[in-house]
Amino acid sequence: MDIKKLVKPNVLKLKAYQAEEIHCKVKLDANESPYGFRVLHNVQTNKYPDPEAKELRTLFARGLKIRAENVLHGNGSDELIYNLITTFGGPVLYPVPTFSMYGIISQALDQKFKEIALDEKFDLDMDKMNKHMIISKAKLIFLSSPNNPTGNSFSSERILQIIKRSKGIVVVDEAYQQFSSRKSFIPLLKKHKNLVILRTLSKIGLAGLRTGFMIAHRDIIHEVNKVRLPFNVNSLSQKVAIDTLKKTRELKTRISTIVSERKKLFKEMSKMNGISPFPSDANFILFRVNNPDKIYKDLLKRGVLIRNMKGIAGGCLRVTVGTPAENNMFIKNLLQLV
Amino acid sequence: MDIKKLVKPNVLKLKAYQAEEIHCKVKLDANESPYGFRVLHNVQTNKYPDPEAKELRTLFARGLKIRAENVLHGNGSDELIYNLITTFGGPVLYPVPTFSMYGIISQALDQKFKEIALDEKFDLDMDKMNKHMIISKAKLIFLSSPNNPTGNSFSSERILQIIKRSKGIVVVDEAYQQFSSRKSFIPLLKKHKNLVILRTLSKIGLAGLRTGFMIAHRDIIHEVNKVRLPFNVNSLSQKVAIDTLKKTRELKTRISTIVSERKKLFKEMSKMNGISPFPSDANFILFRVNNPDKIYKDLLKRGVLIRNMKGIAGGCLRVTVGTPAENNMFIKNLLQLV
Repeated sequence: MDIKKLVKPNVLKLKAYQAEEIHCKVKLDANESPYGFRVLHNVQTNKYPDPEAKELRTLFARGLKIRAENVLHGNGSDELIYNLITTFGGPVLYPVPTFSMYGIISQALDQKFKEIALDEKFDLDMDKMNKHMIISKAKLIFLSSPNNPTGNSFSSERILQIIKRSKGIVVVDEAYQQFSSRKSFIPLLKKHKNLVILRTLSKIGLAGLRTGFMIAHRDIIHEVNKVRLPFNVNSLSQKVAIDTLKKTRELKTRISTIVSERKKLFKEMSKMNGISPFPSDANFILFRVNNPDKIYKDLLKRGVLIRNMKGIAGGCLRVTVGTPAENNMFIKNLLQLV
Repeated sequence: MDIKKLVKPNVLKLKAYQAEEIHCKVKLDANESPYGFRVLHNVQTNKYPDPEAKELRTLFARGLKIRAENVLHGNGSDELIYNLITTFGGPVLYPVPTFSMYGIISQALDQKFKEIALDEKFDLDMDKMNKHMIISKAKLIFLSSPNNPTGNSFSSERILQIIKRSKGIVVVDEAYQQFSSRKSFIPLLKKHKNLVILRTLSKIGLAGLRTGFMIAHRDIIHEVNKVRLPFNVNSLSQKVAIDTLKKTRELKTRISTIVSERKKLFKEMSKMNGISPFPSDANFILFRVNNPDKIYKDLLKRGVLIRNMKGIAGGCLRVTVGTPAENNMFIKNLLQLV
């Protein structure tokens, strides 16, 4: 039996996502937080998790001064992207370069998608966005802001224009919002029913938990909730997320540390010959360098793993902000290579 | 903006899965194990989980004397059902009554599905199965054996006939296999490339973790892996599952205890007037009773929660095998009600 003949053609064309797995002393490749949390335990492993994640959603909502009924929980925001595309279908539209899962999941679910190049400042190209929003009749638009991997936030006015003009759902993915000085789009939810915000706990020290949130109008939550697997966020993650979200002061301090470390990194990198870092609102910095492959490999040899972003702006590298010691090690080694 | 106009029609028709949430002293409604595990902690919460879950898959495979390359991990076997239907598409075919997620997920993913009534012994009705396998050109057939909620295993010969005759994938969902004296279908994988086995850790004390496995030919694993979210099983669940799977003796003892408690329950229930338990190969017993709604409510008042299975064989109830003390409490209270 030829299995390939049974597979849907859209899946057959797909390649499995390859998460890099390189072991390295200093790992600054995955936009994780350098700071973890102690895991407390008082979980009944034998019982199913709370399917509604009520305590977790309530606590998360309270921190943002919104209602729990406007929040849906996901096994990472990845799963919420899956659920959104399952609920609304395509065409899916998003600017590139951006987070790769919008395209991968569109393909897995056999939905049309259209990629629009960002302008030369990595901001939204409004002529193209406006044109293709209409031509493609986009059902879903994904805007990662701050954007991964470029690090910048898109212009708020441009995002707002898209929300106003779109006849479909506009998803502003705020995975990195807490590292930005720009305002969140959450207050606009009241006025714009087609707006969806994504958030994640992955960037504030809980990537291992796989916990993300969608914030939206009740009507949207109601529909997307239908395609959500009932027990999608496990009991251990719910418990650890609840315990951690209560540590508001510690979370704030850590974010400030990462932001000030990012500024320090940016300043140091700007001074280097042949290194052009792009301004960042996130917990990582994209930078242009003449020989990215060589620098990437040489850093790796020296025990510093960053991400190679071939294809972007003629060859870039992306470094995640680590602990002060990790950042110093990165800077020290990079200096010796350029 | 009317959100409903944007939602895919198949999703609009769906109702969200309502997991029962009744608080009760003795909870025997959800086919969980009565025994949990202590949770150890040594997890880097800030790092992403191992996307391939290598250690977990290797350990799980070793226990079944198969290869890790034939195993794929899911956020519960629910997610693997999602992934299978995403990969192969419909028509999906399954006997009823059975596990509700086959139908719910088919609908969420907008795939056709066909339900075939089981025969009067709750076994596969081969005339109907043969006919509809051909008529519907089923791409995926789901056979839960032992079957939830009826508790019996389907005849092995009938399952084998379906595997042989099907031009699509046949998924034997062995969530409850460890409580059965029948053989697993795993050894048949070598001979039948279109066979997929589902397993879960949910019934052996780890329902809170959401960890399931798919066992299949490499070619199937390869394709389904493409639509799997890269970090679908979180770090905490991977760690706790690994620690628990090493406790082979304890796991075996617990399963034996549940099987002998099930036999005891069955014997006691068989003696009661107006109670007809169906033979079970699982960790629960379905039983017919004249006034199921009343018995269900009266038990609940007395602090014993079981599952009300209206619509099945003219009105049935389903009780999960609990600890000896919980089972005694169930029996004692049921006796007073019939």
